[in-house]
Amino acid sequence: MLTLYCFGPGANSLKPLLTLYEKGLEFTRRQLNPAAFEHHEDWFKQLNPNGQVPALDHDGKIITESTVICEYLEDVFPDTPRMRPDDPYLRAQMRIWTKWVDEYFCWCVSTIGWDRMVSRMAKQYSDEEFEAYVKRIPIYEQQVKWRRAREGFPKDLLDEEMRKIAFSVKKLETRLSESPWLTGPDYTLADICNFAIANGMQMGFSDLVNDKDTPHLIDWIKRINDRPAAKKMFAETPRERLERPTQPAAENA
Amino acid sequence: MLTLYCFGPGANSLKPLLTLYEKGLEFTRRQLNPAAFEHHEDWFKQLNPNGQVPALDHDGKIITESTVICEYLEDVFPDTPRMRPDDPYLRAQMRIWTKWVDEYFCWCVSTIGWDRMVSRMAKQYSDEEFEAYVKRIPIYEQQVKWRRAREGFPKDLLDEEMRKIAFSVKKLETRLSESPWLTGPDYTLADICNFAIANGMQMGFSDLVNDKDTPHLIDWIKRINDRPAAKKMFAETPRERLERPTQPAAENA
Repeated sequence: MLTLYCFGPGANSLKPLLTLYEKGLEFTRRQLNPAAFEHHEDWFKQLNPNGQVPALDHDGKIITESTVICEYLEDVFPDTPRMRPDDPYLRAQMRIWTKWVDEYFCWCVSTIGWDRMVSRMAKQYSDEEFEAYVKRIPIYEQQVKWRRAREGFPKDLLDEEMRKIAFSVKKLETRLSESPWLTGPDYTLADICNFAIANGMQMGFSDLVNDKDTPHLIDWIKRINDRPAAKKMFAETPRERLERPTQPAAENA
Repeated sequence: MLTLYCFGPGANSLKPLLTLYEKGLEFTRRQLNPAAFEHHEDWFKQLNPNGQVPALDHDGKIITESTVICEYLEDVFPDTPRMRPDDPYLRAQMRIWTKWVDEYFCWCVSTIGWDRMVSRMAKQYSDEEFEAYVKRIPIYEQQVKWRRAREGFPKDLLDEEMRKIAFSVKKLETRLSESPWLTGPDYTLADICNFAIANGMQMGFSDLVNDKDTPHLIDWIKRINDRPAAKKMFAETPRERLERPTQPAAENA
């Protein structure tokens, strides 16, 4: 039995979510509410001591880290549609792209996303409430990020992240002008993991991602959104709650 | 035919190097001189446009990124000793550890290493010579790092990196007090990739890594150094040249 603990279909949560849909695997989707800091509650930290989604429960074994979960699904279910090339050279190219998302692309987009959305959410709480939530976060760097989001990120950091985003967008556009998919001829985890970050940039970063400047990137985003698996994933998504819950968070568990 | 372009057996270069030795694969070792910025010369950038070692040439196909190269060797040579668990759950645990090295552990140790060694090397050049070398570096962030190394890294950055190193050492010690190897019962790429960064810390960071505070980490470093593959790798290493070459760098190609 497969249960995926995740947020909505964006960023790191989207990676295993779309992979599960593409592979046509039956699974239970357990969507946590980030605005209630549900991923930092004790019941979830018993599953993933880092207090991070996504996490996959496969017959009681817990797999963490979004990209690792995707490769795990390929290792365990090779008879479902493959999202990983059989050819070792192409597989290595795929891994260079998934690694790049995790080490570079996701971070710059994440900071801007936090600046625009998480900051607002973090300000809904009183100082005492907020600190009580932050204390439950197991990873020190995440505590720092939450506090910074509430205070406001420094402008020089935001400028540097925007520079990295512009670089990333150009890199993707260049690659997609040469090849239909990032790894080469086939749609792979490289596309899924980059789509997880890039989808929505045509709205949120429309000065960078648009028909005129990045036609190949726009087309690639559209082609993935048009896939039956992506359509099903979005259609089956519970409504996002980015407001603080009316019930205390602890009662939501 | 396999050719590995690398620096000496430490940090990222050690990962595929030790993997090749452990697997008993025949290969040519082409050791570049970082003090001559050889990895930023045009002939090498034709192999890896990022100007980074290690890079593997396998029958004319170039594979980059140290961890990706290690997994590639596992994919291509499954009949040599396996450094990757067959069990998908353990394989996922291995990947969580190799990912952690690449995203966290290697960076904090790297900055301190640069502060102690690369800074000195970078100061051997005149301003004009140095800038001419830096301009050849393809990755913007690497240009920034070289300039910072020459100027001296800010103290608050060094303090933060030391905090991360102390955290990392504790994490490794805790894990190795529970298990002989990082992934579990078997020696895997998780050990090789972490050893690549941890080996030598018993000298360079002896206040953190020592018999009293981290007996399991010390023992694990010793067990890996005692393996025939590691002994052979170190014995066959050309002498490191960390001084600027007497010939102009371009003539070394």
